[in-house]
Amino acid sequence: MTDFTATKKQFALPDGAVYLDGNSLGPLPKTAVARVEKTMREEWGRLAISGWNRAGWFDMPRRVGDRIARLIGAEPGHVVMGDTLSIKVYQALASALEMNPGRKVILSDTGNFPSDLYMAQGLAATLGSGYRLKTVAPEAVADALDESVAVLLLTEVDYRTGRKHDMAALTRAAHDLGILTVWDLAHSAGALPVDLAGARADFAVGCTYKYLNSGPGAPAFIYVAPRHAEKARPALSGWLGHEAPFAFDPDYRPGRGIDRMRVGTPPILQLAALDASMDIWDTVDMHDLREKSIVLCDQFIAGIEASCPQLRLASPRDGRQRGSQVSFHFEHGFAAMQATIAAGVTGDFRAPDIMRFGFTPLYIDEDDVARAVAIIAGVMANETWKEPRFQTRAAVT
Amino acid sequence: MTDFTATKKQFALPDGAVYLDGNSLGPLPKTAVARVEKTMREEWGRLAISGWNRAGWFDMPRRVGDRIARLIGAEPGHVVMGDTLSIKVYQALASALEMNPGRKVILSDTGNFPSDLYMAQGLAATLGSGYRLKTVAPEAVADALDESVAVLLLTEVDYRTGRKHDMAALTRAAHDLGILTVWDLAHSAGALPVDLAGARADFAVGCTYKYLNSGPGAPAFIYVAPRHAEKARPALSGWLGHEAPFAFDPDYRPGRGIDRMRVGTPPILQLAALDASMDIWDTVDMHDLREKSIVLCDQFIAGIEASCPQLRLASPRDGRQRGSQVSFHFEHGFAAMQATIAAGVTGDFRAPDIMRFGFTPLYIDEDDVARAVAIIAGVMANETWKEPRFQTRAAVT
Repeated sequence: MTDFTATKKQFALPDGAVYLDGNSLGPLPKTAVARVEKTMREEWGRLAISGWNRAGWFDMPRRVGDRIARLIGAEPGHVVMGDTLSIKVYQALASALEMNPGRKVILSDTGNFPSDLYMAQGLAATLGSGYRLKTVAPEAVADALDESVAVLLLTEVDYRTGRKHDMAALTRAAHDLGILTVWDLAHSAGALPVDLAGARADFAVGCTYKYLNSGPGAPAFIYVAPRHAEKARPALSGWLGHEAPFAFDPDYRPGRGIDRMRVGTPPILQLAALDASMDIWDTVDMHDLREKSIVLCDQFIAGIEASCPQLRLASPRDGRQRGSQVSFHFEHGFAAMQATIAAGVTGDFRAPDIMRFGFTPLYIDEDDVARAVAIIAGVMANETWKEPRFQTRAAVT
Repeated sequence: MTDFTATKKQFALPDGAVYLDGNSLGPLPKTAVARVEKTMREEWGRLAISGWNRAGWFDMPRRVGDRIARLIGAEPGHVVMGDTLSIKVYQALASALEMNPGRKVILSDTGNFPSDLYMAQGLAATLGSGYRLKTVAPEAVADALDESVAVLLLTEVDYRTGRKHDMAALTRAAHDLGILTVWDLAHSAGALPVDLAGARADFAVGCTYKYLNSGPGAPAFIYVAPRHAEKARPALSGWLGHEAPFAFDPDYRPGRGIDRMRVGTPPILQLAALDASMDIWDTVDMHDLREKSIVLCDQFIAGIEASCPQLRLASPRDGRQRGSQVSFHFEHGFAAMQATIAAGVTGDFRAPDIMRFGFTPLYIDEDDVARAVAIIAGVMANETWKEPRFQTRAAVT
C-alpha cells in the first residue's frame, strides 16, 4: 500500500497555498535540490568532460526512461528522455507517417493540446504533397477513422476537461484500419495507470514537469513499440541517435531501437532533478494512486457543486472517464481563478471559460481538498472575483 | 582591459589537471551552483507555477539570448535559446530551404560536425523530391558554390582541426549566387569575436556548453537575420513560437521575429546555470580574449613542436586562421590522449588520429600551458602511452 503521508513530506509546497496545479507544473521534490547540487559540484565541477562516462551522464536518458517505463506500461528499454514534448510529437509523427506510405491524413481531436496540433501542421507543411492534419470533436474520433488516415494523434487526457480517451479501444480500432497511433501522455504519466504495451500503442510521448514533478522545462520522453523500434526512421537524426556517435561518420546510420530517438546532448541538470523525483515514484503503486485520485476528485466535485452553483462541471462525472483533474465552466473564470489564487488555492484558467484544478495524491490529501472547497466557496459567495485587481490578464498565465 | 586573473578565480577546475577540454565541456562557474539552487528552492519551490511570470522564466530564452547576442555580433532581440544545437540546425535549414524554392542542394563540408550533416540528411530524406546534402572538402567550399545550391551550412571553426572559415567572404560569395547561409557557431561563440550582422549571415546556431561554460546539455541558441525574421516559417512549430501561446488557438500562427523559433517549454534549471555563466562573460572583451587565445595557442604549438617530434600540427599555424583550439595528428593518438589525461592534462581524441586541446583564456593562462607542454612531453618521451591500460577504448569518449 502506497504511503501518501510519506510522499507528501517529500515535497516543498508553496507557502500557505493548496497547490492544485501540479497538472501544469509539479512542485519541488525536496531531495532534488541536493541531487542537482551534487551533479553540479561533484560531477560537472570535479569530473568536467569525464562526467559523461564516470558520472553516467551519457546513459541517463535511457536509465531514467526505464524508470518512467514502469509508470506507463512500456517494455523496459523502449523509453528514452530528451528534448521537449513538442519535439517528441514531431519525431513520432514523422516516423509514423513514413511507416504508412500512401496515406496523407493525421487525425486528431479539437481537444488536443494546441502544440501537438501545431507540430502536426508544421510537419504537414514541410512534407507538402497533400499531407494534412484533420481534427474532429473528441467524441467523434472513433467514427472518423478510415483508410485515408495514416496516423491517429491523440492526447489521452484532455488538458482542459480531463476527459480520458479509451486508449486500448481506439488503438484497436485504428489498427483494424491500418492506422498507426501516437499517444501523448502529458496528462497521463504519473496521473493514472497507463498500459502502452497492453494497448499495443505504436508511439507515445509525454512530458515530465507536470505529474512527474521534475521541474520547469524538464525533458520529455518518447516510446516506440518494440515491433517498430528497428524500423522507425528518425526525421530528427542527431548524432546521439547514430549507431556509433563517437565514430564521427559522415553518414547517419540509426542507432539500435529507441536509442535512435535521441537527438542532441541531453540536459543533465534537468535529468538529475527528474531522477530525484523518480525516487519518490519508485514507492508508488499506480493503482493506489488512481484510487486516491478519484476519491479526491469526487470529493472536490461534490464540495464545489454543493457550495458554488455558478460553476458548471466540465469534466466527466464518472471518475473512470477522467484523468486526475477537475474543471468547471464559469463565464468569469479568468477573474474567478485570479481571486481563487489570491485566496490561497492555486489552479489555473484555460480559455474560454475553464477553471482547472489538478489532484495529485502524492502531496494533496482530503484535508487539502476540504480547505480548497471552503476557500473557493468563499470567493464565489462573496463575489471577490469582481474586484478590479482580478480582472486584468497577466502577460502570461 | 579584461582581467583574466579575475575570471579564472570564478571557475571550479578539475583537481590537479590542466583542463584543455573547454571546447567540449566548459568547467563549472562557481556562482552557477547557488544560482541554480536559488532557482530551485526560491522560485520553483516557493512560486511553483507562478515562477513563469514572477521569476521571469517565460522570458528567459530571449533575455539570455540577448546576452549571447553581444558575443556573436547579433542585433539585440534576434537570438533565442532552446532545444539542442542539432534541433536548431534543423530549424534553420528547414526555414532557409523554404525561402529558396526551386533549389534542392544543401552544401556543407566534410569537416562539419557530423550531427549537422546528419540533421541535413534527415531533413532532406523527410522532404524527398530531390533534396540532398552535398559535401566537399573545407577548402573547396567557395568553388562549389553555384546556383543549384539553396543553403550553405557550415560550422565556422572545424571541430577537429580548429580551421576557421572566412564567414564574411563565404557569406558574400553565397549571396552573390542567391544562396542562404546557416552558420554553426559551436566552436566560435565565446571562442573568438563573431560579427553576424557585419557578415550578413542569414541564420546562425550554436551551443553553450563549450566555451560558454553553461553545463552538460545546456540549451542551444538560434539567430535569424532581422531581414528574414518575419518571413521564416518554423518547421518545428511549437506552442511557445505561436503568436499568442496562451490563446490556445487550434491553428498555428508564427510569433513575432525570433520568438517563432521557440518550440516547447524552456529548460529553466539549465538556463539559470547559463545565466550565471554570462555574468562572467559580461566582464570580457572579445578582442582581448582573442588576443590572449592566440598567444596561448602559439605558446602551446611552439612548446609541443620543440619537445614532441612525433606529433604533427593539424591546425593552421596562423592564429588568425584558427579558432581557439590546437590539434595534432598522431597515429597512436587515442592511447596517447588517454595517457595524457592520466598524467594531468585533459584534452580529447577525435578519430582517426587527432589529439585536440582547447584554449580558453577565461581560466587557462601561460603557466597552465607551460605545465601542459611539460606533461605531454613527458608522456611522449617516456612512451607512457604504450602501457596496456591506455590502449582500451572506453564505451564513450
